[in-house]
Amino acid sequence: MSEEKRNPLEEPIEAPAEVEEASGEDWKNFHPADAADHLEDLSLEQQLEVVGEMGVEEAANSIAEMEKHDRSELLDGLSLGLAADILQEMSPDDAADALYDLDEPKQNEILSKVKRDHAARIKRLMKYDSDTAGGVMNTEILYLDQNLSVDQAVNLIRKEIGEMEIPYYGFIVDQNDKIVGVVSLRELLMAKTGTRLKNLIKDQVLVSVTFDVHQEEVARLIKHYNLLALPVTDYEGKLLGVVTVDDVIDIIHEEASEDMQVMVGAGPDETVDSPWTYSVKKRLPWLVINVINSAVAAMVVAFFEGTIAQMAVLAVLMPIVANQAGNTGHQAMVVMIRQLAMEKFDRKKVWIAVLREAKIGVVNGLFIGVLVFFGVFLWTDTVPLALVMSAALCADMVIGSLAGASIPLILKELGRDPAQASSILLTTLTDSAGFFALLGLAAVFLLAG
Amino acid sequence: MSEEKRNPLEEPIEAPAEVEEASGEDWKNFHPADAADHLEDLSLEQQLEVVGEMGVEEAANSIAEMEKHDRSELLDGLSLGLAADILQEMSPDDAADALYDLDEPKQNEILSKVKRDHAARIKRLMKYDSDTAGGVMNTEILYLDQNLSVDQAVNLIRKEIGEMEIPYYGFIVDQNDKIVGVVSLRELLMAKTGTRLKNLIKDQVLVSVTFDVHQEEVARLIKHYNLLALPVTDYEGKLLGVVTVDDVIDIIHEEASEDMQVMVGAGPDETVDSPWTYSVKKRLPWLVINVINSAVAAMVVAFFEGTIAQMAVLAVLMPIVANQAGNTGHQAMVVMIRQLAMEKFDRKKVWIAVLREAKIGVVNGLFIGVLVFFGVFLWTDTVPLALVMSAALCADMVIGSLAGASIPLILKELGRDPAQASSILLTTLTDSAGFFALLGLAAVFLLAG
Repeated sequence: MSEEKRNPLEEPIEAPAEVEEASGEDWKNFHPADAADHLEDLSLEQQLEVVGEMGVEEAANSIAEMEKHDRSELLDGLSLGLAADILQEMSPDDAADALYDLDEPKQNEILSKVKRDHAARIKRLMKYDSDTAGGVMNTEILYLDQNLSVDQAVNLIRKEIGEMEIPYYGFIVDQNDKIVGVVSLRELLMAKTGTRLKNLIKDQVLVSVTFDVHQEEVARLIKHYNLLALPVTDYEGKLLGVVTVDDVIDIIHEEASEDMQVMVGAGPDETVDSPWTYSVKKRLPWLVINVINSAVAAMVVAFFEGTIAQMAVLAVLMPIVANQAGNTGHQAMVVMIRQLAMEKFDRKKVWIAVLREAKIGVVNGLFIGVLVFFGVFLWTDTVPLALVMSAALCADMVIGSLAGASIPLILKELGRDPAQASSILLTTLTDSAGFFALLGLAAVFLLAG
Repeated sequence: MSEEKRNPLEEPIEAPAEVEEASGEDWKNFHPADAADHLEDLSLEQQLEVVGEMGVEEAANSIAEMEKHDRSELLDGLSLGLAADILQEMSPDDAADALYDLDEPKQNEILSKVKRDHAARIKRLMKYDSDTAGGVMNTEILYLDQNLSVDQAVNLIRKEIGEMEIPYYGFIVDQNDKIVGVVSLRELLMAKTGTRLKNLIKDQVLVSVTFDVHQEEVARLIKHYNLLALPVTDYEGKLLGVVTVDDVIDIIHEEASEDMQVMVGAGPDETVDSPWTYSVKKRLPWLVINVINSAVAAMVVAFFEGTIAQMAVLAVLMPIVANQAGNTGHQAMVVMIRQLAMEKFDRKKVWIAVLREAKIGVVNGLFIGVLVFFGVFLWTDTVPLALVMSAALCADMVIGSLAGASIPLILKELGRDPAQASSILLTTLTDSAGFFALLGLAAVFLLAG
């Protein structure tokens, strides 16, 4: 343990002083989270040099806080011995995360130099999908036998607590390590000495998840029930680990901005620190799909090419319809995606929400329709054209509202991510419908007359 | 206190059993968070009836978990006496939140019936902006004089802990209530008895914020430093309250999905439960702005009306350019908005990120440009048109990438929300630039020849 005092509000990682402006040599005075930020700004060569100069414990804490891509590159560049020493200092779940993106031979090479039981724990964690309860849980937890008395439990905690990452509660298990309850330090301190743990928890209702539950559901449960930690078990209820509220913070932030990114076909885990080639790889396939989808809308226009040749002003009005309906549809869509992201899926409630969006679409569509009627009339001085434009715009805005609200739901019902490429689907639809309405109405009412 | 045991992983609200399917009368068996969900699904009349039948404590816990709009309506509909009794049972911060959206006379009427010191606490909290540290902090905290010994502190905690909302640490203050450190139960249990608190914390580096810091920054600090709680002070450092990690979960979720919503001009706090008229009010102004902006892009097209009259196929290609560049720009934009949302603003780093997006835009633009060249060539059998189209598309995709990455930064530099209506600004730009490039190149190279 270092000489400095931890801030007790933090997870018990070594967390020394925060220093706002520090030169390259002051790594000791950085909080690991800040050290990680600074490391990320250096080239790989500089990173390797700095990590070589750091203490192993400091290095472990800082690397654990680094962004995924940078962390993998750095770990890959270190000597096997140093990488193993650093992993040895990390908690098993941080170590598993850090190793996750290296290729398998490299993982095994490094792990072969880590102490046997620590390596075994890390390997066990790496088997879980990284976006499930198993992939995000901590395994350094306090098992308390249900037959202990409160005072025995407090003594055990006093002895063991220094090693634990989650020091605020113990997990009560039966003889088969099946979880039967949870007890907080606070409760232990308040309970009558001599009380058996199993009596302390006899009316407790335990919320727990199996290891294969998706992290978004884990986050939802912790948020919904204001939990500080959620036990993770196997199918038999045997305690495997625990997801704490601070892990969930990262998950919630990830999932919420993930939705925004996958909606437009960017990679869910892209950040400004990702290699630019990674971003190209993630985005280009969706751009190809988008260009093919755009071609569908273009075909609608092509069908009316003769109409446009006779009345080029329609080409002027087309982008207004498409853009406005797309915007309207997105407003409905993002509210629906937010709903699906963090609330329990309630089929009846969400389809009622589609009707709600339809109402909003009709009112907004009528208002903008009237506005645009006057705009087009003032500009072209022809009532029929202004009528056709405002009718097409209003209709497409209602279609946009309905489509925007429904697309995430339909994706969800199909078992897909409700946000995935939803923006691309939406604009294909609003573009096509808008062009069809505008050019179709024009062909029938303006050119036939 | 109820007879049932709390799950110790929760905040110490009364939190009885979770029951998946329960009839309308089983309110006692609901977790407050579930009871709140069920209340939200009822009509106001039904809600009032149910709340009348609930115990006051149950009602307080459930109403505290309800969605803002529903909560205000319900509270407004209750008799003054019952509303006051319910507020009396809530923690001051929950009570302040619940009152926040009522009109002032109603607030005062209800508060006049709440016990004097509780009402004073609630009023004090209501003075803070609801999206600042002061607006989200809890005030029921444990003040520990720095001259206490560890054993005196433990005794004090044992005596007081039942009343406290945040039972895991004490806040150490000097004689002027200025915060000097924080100590966890865990640390107190591990420390040598007799140690004075001020010696226990002498090397501690305290992270705290003043009451007026924005909740997004509060969330960022807690996330960045893995804090479980962050003390909130006045300008002199006097302790006012504390923001805990579970408050931050809601903030992070709010802020992240807020970004997605304000980006397209929906209200930041809209949900599927908001009244539909509220959504119309929030969205319509942005739709008006969008239609005016679309008119700008339309003017570009109008400028080339003659070109289109001669070559209607250009109108077919226009939407492809606009849609594709808009999509490309959005991909860049959402990654940038994510960065600005939760990382410390680092001007140099983010402008480097704009260059990163430019590179991605060039590569994706060239790829899609080549693809579209062959597409248009196969369809029209004319190389010059295919060349003009692919050049315009590629150029607009690069413009989209640059604009998408820059717009949030420019908004930020102007002191505005980086996400606000950024989608509307972006599509105005990509539409206009795309139409100008396509129609301009066509006018010069295809029609002049």
